[in-house]
Amino acid sequence: MSLGTLVLLRHGHSDWNAKNLFTGWVDVDLNAQGEDEARHGGELLREHGLLPDVVHTSVLRRAIRTSELALHAADRHWIPVRRSWRLNERHYGALQGKDKKQTLEQYGEEQFMLWRRSYDTPPPPIADDDEFSQVGDPRYAALPPELMPKAECLKDVLARALPYWYDAIIPDLRDGRTVLVAAHGNSLRAIVKHIDQISDEAIAALNIPTGMPLRYELDPQTLRPLTPGGQYLDPEAAAEAAAAVANQGR
Amino acid sequence: MSLGTLVLLRHGHSDWNAKNLFTGWVDVDLNAQGEDEARHGGELLREHGLLPDVVHTSVLRRAIRTSELALHAADRHWIPVRRSWRLNERHYGALQGKDKKQTLEQYGEEQFMLWRRSYDTPPPPIADDDEFSQVGDPRYAALPPELMPKAECLKDVLARALPYWYDAIIPDLRDGRTVLVAAHGNSLRAIVKHIDQISDEAIAALNIPTGMPLRYELDPQTLRPLTPGGQYLDPEAAAEAAAAVANQGR
Repeated sequence: MSLGTLVLLRHGHSDWNAKNLFTGWVDVDLNAQGEDEARHGGELLREHGLLPDVVHTSVLRRAIRTSELALHAADRHWIPVRRSWRLNERHYGALQGKDKKQTLEQYGEEQFMLWRRSYDTPPPPIADDDEFSQVGDPRYAALPPELMPKAECLKDVLARALPYWYDAIIPDLRDGRTVLVAAHGNSLRAIVKHIDQISDEAIAALNIPTGMPLRYELDPQTLRPLTPGGQYLDPEAAAEAAAAVANQGR
Repeated sequence: MSLGTLVLLRHGHSDWNAKNLFTGWVDVDLNAQGEDEARHGGELLREHGLLPDVVHTSVLRRAIRTSELALHAADRHWIPVRRSWRLNERHYGALQGKDKKQTLEQYGEEQFMLWRRSYDTPPPPIADDDEFSQVGDPRYAALPPELMPKAECLKDVLARALPYWYDAIIPDLRDGRTVLVAAHGNSLRAIVKHIDQISDEAIAALNIPTGMPLRYELDPQTLRPLTPGGQYLDPEAAAEAAAAVANQGR
């Protein structure tokens, strides 16, 4: 039986993009631009006849609202919904809520880029009493404490996202479904790193633009992409946007 | 183990309320007033600390968007979502898309009220090629044809909603969860008729107001309400609104 189609969608601009703050697990909302990006993503799905049969999201508002707005625009609001903290954005540790420009000035370019882009160097851990800590948040109440991150590098994100990829997303693809994953820059980079077998070094340069559906057809045997890197529904806009993301926060 | 709490929420005004059309399974959206009702319902949940652990909706946009807006307002957007056509509004048959006032004039008061309020008289069946038929709608593609209604009375709605009540909602209540059911006037009346053991005659007079969370605590043995009729979070507003619903379409 042939495998279903995977569609990745990164949420768009949030309230904290405009403020240039590190967000991570802080549950900020989309701003008006982010809402437009989500609707546009949904319209692209509809125009290309790429109609999701099921959607997976993180438990963060900006990804959830992106899925809702996109699915309403695609007339697929009625499909089954699954959510997991394993699709959350990278936990940004003690940097959550901090200004990116101030952090760059305070710690210098090298340390800043290490935290932003190195594969295996997490930022400093967040304190439990930090105002941007998620300790006590009811959505994580059932999580054993050793699973609750205090800071994550991309390697950590991949390690906690992979069980969800194997146990929740692949079964839906095996059922022949078109599977929408509405999530975040780093949880999607982790999935792409895994399926495209991108090296720990090369992943630093990979940027996924916001609001642009990225389609993957996978080999049913190997679960590797038939077209490495997948295919954006609007490739030109995606290329422009990816270049812009690379300069973000500078 | 004690049972969880049931919360019923009827969606608010839609595009077709203002136009005074029979809606049924036609997938119209909320209007601005309906969006406000949904948000207000979510704010009531939050103010009363009645925080849903899981939400059940129909597959119709006006109930889905009500759940989304209410849950975002209550900061519970991240909870698990379940949907079923069994929670859909009553299928209004050949009357779907028809003007209520015109229908009243054309068929007379007695027939009109029979279709609106009798327990076991369905409206005339809808033709497959009617512009307001749901034949071919992808969300019902997996439904065996004998389950796909062409018109329903309230008795029919209860018959198709009850398996979902038993198999999906009660298990969540048995798990001790606060269960939000965001649905429609008639699917909620069917559930209320069942749990409150309301007679076929008396149910005609029962109106559930829109956007007003209705809370039920059930006996773990009998699954009957500890307080018959449940408790509205805002009882005064609910009483006023219920009186208004009784005169709707006149």
